[in-house]
Amino acid sequence: MDEAIGHYLTYDIAVMDTPTPTVYTPTTRTKVRRLRKRGVYDKARVHAILDEGIICHVGFVKDGQPYVIPTLYARAAETLYVHGSAVSRMLKSLAGGVDICVTVTLLDGYVLARSAFHHSMNFRSVMLFGTSSQVVEDEEKRAATAALLEHIAPGRSAHTRDPTAAELRAVLMVRIPIAEGSAKVRTGGPIDEPGDMGEPIWAGQIPLVTIAGAAIPDGVLPPGTWEPAYVRAYPARGGGES
Amino acid sequence: MDEAIGHYLTYDIAVMDTPTPTVYTPTTRTKVRRLRKRGVYDKARVHAILDEGIICHVGFVKDGQPYVIPTLYARAAETLYVHGSAVSRMLKSLAGGVDICVTVTLLDGYVLARSAFHHSMNFRSVMLFGTSSQVVEDEEKRAATAALLEHIAPGRSAHTRDPTAAELRAVLMVRIPIAEGSAKVRTGGPIDEPGDMGEPIWAGQIPLVTIAGAAIPDGVLPPGTWEPAYVRAYPARGGGES
Repeated sequence: MDEAIGHYLTYDIAVMDTPTPTVYTPTTRTKVRRLRKRGVYDKARVHAILDEGIICHVGFVKDGQPYVIPTLYARAAETLYVHGSAVSRMLKSLAGGVDICVTVTLLDGYVLARSAFHHSMNFRSVMLFGTSSQVVEDEEKRAATAALLEHIAPGRSAHTRDPTAAELRAVLMVRIPIAEGSAKVRTGGPIDEPGDMGEPIWAGQIPLVTIAGAAIPDGVLPPGTWEPAYVRAYPARGGGES
Repeated sequence: MDEAIGHYLTYDIAVMDTPTPTVYTPTTRTKVRRLRKRGVYDKARVHAILDEGIICHVGFVKDGQPYVIPTLYARAAETLYVHGSAVSRMLKSLAGGVDICVTVTLLDGYVLARSAFHHSMNFRSVMLFGTSSQVVEDEEKRAATAALLEHIAPGRSAHTRDPTAAELRAVLMVRIPIAEGSAKVRTGGPIDEPGDMGEPIWAGQIPLVTIAGAAIPDGVLPPGTWEPAYVRAYPARGGGES
């Protein structure tokens, strides 16, 4: 299991820098130390992982204690948006502007090796560092809300009842810059010790894919309510880089 | 999207307590503040979520900066094990004994509502707080290694080449107590505003399930290598509580 885990544990710790137009500059805290080939700083690949991911895990510190909260998110250009109730304690922390670490992980499959410690996972993950900030303008709040709906299902934002002014006020929207980040990717089969290669132990990959089951319409929809295509055509996530 | 996210953001902040035999005592940092019905402190349910999960996200603080690292894990009774290379910086931090927050999230489905802000997710998540510690005894290291393999596929630990003494030395194994924790669960369809209920807007659930694709045997397996059943019978994860 050295591969995925060794990989994940190689982030260095330090200060951010300004990215070039197409790559994120590795910093000491995003640089992959041990398995350099797995570090990915290309913006298009980072964006692709963020767009394929379903939820993120937001890490922040309060009174010295780390918290890791799973939540929906959406990307708009170089910004990630998360949101929640204005009385939510976590959202209030984030809205105040704190150092965060946001991680999005796609599971592509198990890697079964001949030896115990070479078991691994194929995955794609993005880890972002930055400072959160509150969205106060209604226009950006509306755009971020639409982005969140589009992240759930492309086209959805045109099919829902828009937020009212009161609803917009009741929501805390937080932005997270996609400025300092990196992706890590593992692909392929097991890498075993030479001495184990002749053993008759099954080794290989078990791909993992997240798919949609049959949609369940709400029981009280008015008869004849149109069903958008995305309800029955949700794209598979994971399984490997497309 | 108030549901899932509002929920996730309700953890209070404070001190741990001793659980009774079958439930975890809510503490101010695990207690669900806003949507109490979603708080779950029952041990069997917490264990079931941990056992169904594939990876966890480990949060820790270094020099005031939060880090959120995805990694494989396994549960053995009331302990969670994670591991990695002995030269891994993150594992060294955890082995030294630090405050952590470990979150496991199962996605059960999207909840599409009539109004933008009532979109949500069905999910089951567990958030654990505690202090990490290093496993030093070979016997516990071996047992934890077996648990990690069994978490990947039940039966796997009997089918692999066991760790050598040198491999055991090269691995850092870290234990995390499952003492202060809670699960949160959302199920069911959208909860819309009364005024939106008659609108002809499709609303309902899109279940999400993580399944295995066709296994890919390593290209150089000796001819006739036996294929264990779990390679082709990986159980689906997510989709709702069974």
